[in-house]
Amino acid sequence: MNKRKKTKNAILKTALDMASQLSLESVTIGALAKATKMSKSGLFAHFQSKENLQIEILKFAASDFTDQVVLPALREEAGVPRIKSLVANWIRWGAQLKGGCIFVSASTEFNERPGKVRDYLLYQQEGWIASLKKIAQSAIRAKVFRADIDCEQFAFDLYSLMLGYNYYHILLRQDSSRKHHDAALERLIDAYR
Amino acid sequence: MNKRKKTKNAILKTALDMASQLSLESVTIGALAKATKMSKSGLFAHFQSKENLQIEILKFAASDFTDQVVLPALREEAGVPRIKSLVANWIRWGAQLKGGCIFVSASTEFNERPGKVRDYLLYQQEGWIASLKKIAQSAIRAKVFRADIDCEQFAFDLYSLMLGYNYYHILLRQDSSRKHHDAALERLIDAYR
Repeated sequence: MNKRKKTKNAILKTALDMASQLSLESVTIGALAKATKMSKSGLFAHFQSKENLQIEILKFAASDFTDQVVLPALREEAGVPRIKSLVANWIRWGAQLKGGCIFVSASTEFNERPGKVRDYLLYQQEGWIASLKKIAQSAIRAKVFRADIDCEQFAFDLYSLMLGYNYYHILLRQDSSRKHHDAALERLIDAYR
Repeated sequence: MNKRKKTKNAILKTALDMASQLSLESVTIGALAKATKMSKSGLFAHFQSKENLQIEILKFAASDFTDQVVLPALREEAGVPRIKSLVANWIRWGAQLKGGCIFVSASTEFNERPGKVRDYLLYQQEGWIASLKKIAQSAIRAKVFRADIDCEQFAFDLYSLMLGYNYYHILLRQDSSRKHHDAALERLIDAYR
């Protein structure tokens, strides 16, 4: 990685933390200049516009998400170990961000704001849901899940559970969230066996 | 309702729509003055501060939520009819707001901002989760649910499902969301019978 790319990634890491804590909209070039102690013009050279900065933050998060959540799960055995790995990686990844999963908070923020940021979010989230579906398909191939299950339904069920955990965790901060999550995951897996 | 109260409710209705579409933070006294064609000083007399305005928007939404979602469900027979009524009312209520359920979006927005708005949200959400728990308890008394179920777990499971639906609906806008939601609800109810 060259120096320019390294600098940019360090800026994006700070920007992602800011976005997670408050909102994507709060990460202006001005606010980011303060947080990184860089000049506004220096940041402007990297990102050109606020909209582009917002998309770059999401792309940076998506790339890290793929590396930390999706790829390690795909290296696990298809079926239950892969599903549990994906979920555990997702929880760990969200816990690194103060405001929980950035894609969830950004989606809530941008669902009614048509434009490039929403387009990118939709693309990223459709990809994530496709990954959940593929994990169900690989569980069928491994003969862990029944062949007649609806993999789209599994993706919806699993994502709902993760959203429930994220919500209980970030807002309610209940210690019991993980216990409830784990019990729901066991029941979900059993329903598709 | 006196005239002052009627005017205030009409302002809060506009403010709630704005908050749902963008964010609670975007509803400033200035922006609301434009939307309602009232003077800033007139609005200031009603709400005193932005923080107070944000809390009043949430209280207005909570009162409407109780009237439209919770109370009609409590008039249904305990057990499956009451659960299905609650969920259907919740979906209908969220659909009236452009950005989906205001409590979900406000929670994502305020989870890392300690203060009176977050305190109120937490109070309201804990009350809502307690309602979900009570509905499971009434289903036990009606001998529809088994006596040994964990009602907190049921509340977590049901709320996760609703959050999943809300998310798929507002961001992905998939027509299949309702079908997936309904199938998941049937399976959830069956698991507690």
